[in-house]
Amino acid sequence: MTQDPSDWWQTSIIDMEPGRIAFRGTPIEDLIGTTSFPEMIWLMLRGDRPTAGQSALLEAALVAGVDHGPQAPSIAAARMAATCGVGLNAALATGINMLGDIHGGAGEQCAELYLDIDTRAQSVPLAQATVDGLGHWRASRGKIVSGFGHRFHKPVDPRAPRLMALVREAADQGIVSGRFADIGEAVQHQIGADRGADIAMNIDGATAVIFCELGFPPPLSRGLFCLSRSVGILAHAWEQTEQGGRNKGPMPPSILPKYVPG
Amino acid sequence: MTQDPSDWWQTSIIDMEPGRIAFRGTPIEDLIGTTSFPEMIWLMLRGDRPTAGQSALLEAALVAGVDHGPQAPSIAAARMAATCGVGLNAALATGINMLGDIHGGAGEQCAELYLDIDTRAQSVPLAQATVDGLGHWRASRGKIVSGFGHRFHKPVDPRAPRLMALVREAADQGIVSGRFADIGEAVQHQIGADRGADIAMNIDGATAVIFCELGFPPPLSRGLFCLSRSVGILAHAWEQTEQGGRNKGPMPPSILPKYVPG
Amino acid sequence: MTQDPSDWWQTSIIDMEPGRIAFRGTPIEDLIGTTSFPEMIWLMLRGDRPTAGQSALLEAALVAGVDHGPQAPSIAAARMAATCGVGLNAALATGINMLGDIHGGAGEQCAELYLDIDTRAQSVPLAQATVDGLGHWRASRGKIVSGFGHRFHKPVDPRAPRLMALVREAADQGIVSGRFADIGEAVQHQIGADRGADIAMNIDGATAVIFCELGFPPPLSRGLFCLSRSVGILAHAWEQTEQGGRNKGPMPPSILPKYVPG
Amino acid sequence: MTQDPSDWWQTSIIDMEPGRIAFRGTPIEDLIGTTSFPEMIWLMLRGDRPTAGQSALLEAALVAGVDHGPQAPSIAAARMAATCGVGLNAALATGINMLGDIHGGAGEQCAELYLDIDTRAQSVPLAQATVDGLGHWRASRGKIVSGFGHRFHKPVDPRAPRLMALVREAADQGIVSGRFADIGEAVQHQIGADRGADIAMNIDGATAVIFCELGFPPPLSRGLFCLSRSVGILAHAWEQTEQGGRNKGPMPPSILPKYVPG
Repeated sequence: MTQDPSDWWQTSIIDMEPGRIAFRGTPIEDLIGTTSFPEMIWLMLRGDRPTAGQSALLEAALVAGVDHGPQAPSIAAARMAATCGVGLNAALATGINMLGDIHGGAGEQCAELYLDIDTRAQSVPLAQATVDGLGHWRASRGKIVSGFGHRFHKPVDPRAPRLMALVREAADQGIVSGRFADIGEAVQHQIGADRGADIAMNIDGATAVIFCELGFPPPLSRGLFCLSRSVGILAHAWEQTEQGGRNKGPMPPSILPKYVPG
Repeated sequence: MTQDPSDWWQTSIIDMEPGRIAFRGTPIEDLIGTTSFPEMIWLMLRGDRPTAGQSALLEAALVAGVDHGPQAPSIAAARMAATCGVGLNAALATGINMLGDIHGGAGEQCAELYLDIDTRAQSVPLAQATVDGLGHWRASRGKIVSGFGHRFHKPVDPRAPRLMALVREAADQGIVSGRFADIGEAVQHQIGADRGADIAMNIDGATAVIFCELGFPPPLSRGLFCLSRSVGILAHAWEQTEQGGRNKGPMPPSILPKYVPG
Repeated sequence: MTQDPSDWWQTSIIDMEPGRIAFRGTPIEDLIGTTSFPEMIWLMLRGDRPTAGQSALLEAALVAGVDHGPQAPSIAAARMAATCGVGLNAALATGINMLGDIHGGAGEQCAELYLDIDTRAQSVPLAQATVDGLGHWRASRGKIVSGFGHRFHKPVDPRAPRLMALVREAADQGIVSGRFADIGEAVQHQIGADRGADIAMNIDGATAVIFCELGFPPPLSRGLFCLSRSVGILAHAWEQTEQGGRNKGPMPPSILPKYVPG
Repeated sequence: MTQDPSDWWQTSIIDMEPGRIAFRGTPIEDLIGTTSFPEMIWLMLRGDRPTAGQSALLEAALVAGVDHGPQAPSIAAARMAATCGVGLNAALATGINMLGDIHGGAGEQCAELYLDIDTRAQSVPLAQATVDGLGHWRASRGKIVSGFGHRFHKPVDPRAPRLMALVREAADQGIVSGRFADIGEAVQHQIGADRGADIAMNIDGATAVIFCELGFPPPLSRGLFCLSRSVGILAHAWEQTEQGGRNKGPMPPSILPKYVPG
């Protein structure tokens, strides 16, 4: 006897019948033209609507992360894909697929750190909670703290201070609490103290502040970054398409990989 | 002798040096907080900035296409992926990768038809150009015209009339010409006449009108649709993640595929 | 000043110059027609050549894992992809991409368990090492032990006993040590004792025995499984292509996902 | 009323019930240890079994195509992916996904040409059919003929003559007809005559001969190539994993992409 299949896929996101599409209970025709794209992203992921101030912060984070150029493996791979005879959808998927733990996961990992420190700070002062949280991080994940420092942008990733200024403005206006901005800065201070040299928050550290302030769970820090970076991946895939090229590898064909008998 | 590799990757999108990131000539810190996400998408893809009215139309199209539920193979595959122990980036890539010629290409194909009719209409009246363009389409691509009719939403896909109303408003305000709205409606009329029964424009037909009005080349109709649909794919992958499940297949495990000795 | 790029990609796998391709030091024309496909897989991954007996065991494992039918999310997704207007390469990639920690990682995880027990058994008897290894597994990974039990094939996954018989034969002939067959059976025995009911080794438990006997590191248990499963994914994508269908979702279109207002 | 879902997925490949897995009618335990990997590939794709000679030819083609080094975009992308914190399955999928019309489709396209010439040669001599088939190709696809010439391997791709020698041997033994070897050589001769300079068949031209001789339809020329190339993609992803590296882009970080204000 077969099981009734009607409950196998369940969703609170979309309700459809012929001629009707509603998202989170609102007909699509009432959303088109009245809802901004970031508000729609929020609605789809969470079910409620952001305030204007919340939406503006989310939008700032989405704008900040769109691209980091063809040195990034995701962008390079998408540009290569665009020369291999696949559609733009496949080039886009190729780039997004590569936003794994190392290439796209820093925001998620940093948000986990912030939330851990926030929990610890229920019972000890923030400075101590930060020391404890960093200690736990280093014991379990190693010395590199996701969200801080940048191998290319020295001394400062220009996206982070701008994003943090927007968070502070939003906190002043009561849009967000500012709690995670404090935590982010405490982490930055403590890492600097531990290593005896200043370190700057990078874009992942700053967007994690925003996503935590807005109440997104850590995996969505990665998910939202993927939506943001999709824009750059698409733009580069399209630019490469217009430039042309067939089977374009990572370097000019005259530069052969080095063979190392092993 | 090795070739100089410095020209192998060339881009007009992004200019970077340590501490500096500029997109299309503007430092990122001047874009964050001042530029909407749809404006940023436009800037990245095209190099210039949209007017407020252009951006609003683009935004409407992006909002309209976010999702069509777990019956869609892209959404279903992303939900399955979310139960297979891969990251959200991989679930998102899985869904986007499936937006191929049949599942994600209708807008691009429809834009090609509109542009073909627009070219023909330089020398014959629009009604004749439409007949000719449809004739060429059917001879080369078959009887299904991408962008018109819907196997599920009968009689009308609710997204299309709402989008077309926005295009008409924008045309009245001089934001766009309304040329491709005319073409879209001419196509709808002619298909209906040819088959002796009304047919409705669907979301792909309507977003193709918008993307053509805004001057995007046809492949970007697919590209922009992919960005839009990414939102729904992510939302469903995340909802599935929270629902749990391991190795979730298309149907309940008790319903076995039918074996047909071959 | 730019860095010399010639060392950026280094490989011991392939040595090329115009007119010459050598793998692990042997010209390709000397491999074609003299080397079996499993031997080539071994050569490419490891650099040396298997004996005939080693190759036969590898081949048995590759044959065993090719497919588990359209209930499997990877197969279902590839079949769906085949109806979306993408190439067979994309359908294949879609399926393989989903072989993540839960869907494709069991063999790798089981190999890690076997190797952990093998290490422990340097200092305590195998039975004790098995208890200790399982205790460590459960503390760190939970109660489900990858490689044992099957939600569908009860009481026995028919692939496992056949593979284990081949390992025992190979051990009798001195091709492999039999050490990991012992470990696998010790694990099976101990899980059964712990739960008070017999449990059967499944295909992942048996292929992990083989890959450990042959000296492959655990991540290649997953990698080799992906090569094996690729065959089934391709076969199903191709069968679906020949069956036809457009935008084929997980269930018949008349069965809508259940909307649960949330 | 919901439709009966039991017929939605139909397959002739696999028949399962608890404790039983059969492929094309044969229980898996009867295939493991008795069937070679290439025979299993054939069985899964076609339903019948190859003769030993047919299997040997298929195996030669599978061995020949495993890898073309890190200059190939698919291999480069897989190596990059391996540094981004994704699993080997995702690195493998990344590479395979890029085997599109340009990077992985040459064998399929060449097989289509051979079959077209074969059909034409039912009514005109082979030399004329070849002229006609090439004329049709150039009119519809352009002047580059897939399967002939190589941008890197000049004068000769070393894989092609070795594969063709095996086909000729097999034809001498009655394993295959040799018909498509004749066609391939006729094409090579005619292209050379047309351009006034010899051109060499490359691996795609030679494997297309084999796959046509064996009766595989053209899309499976691509599919089988994907299976073959998967081996190299996996080997490179694994080698890169062992080499280490984080977010490894296409060139050393000191070599920035060239910014071209646009």
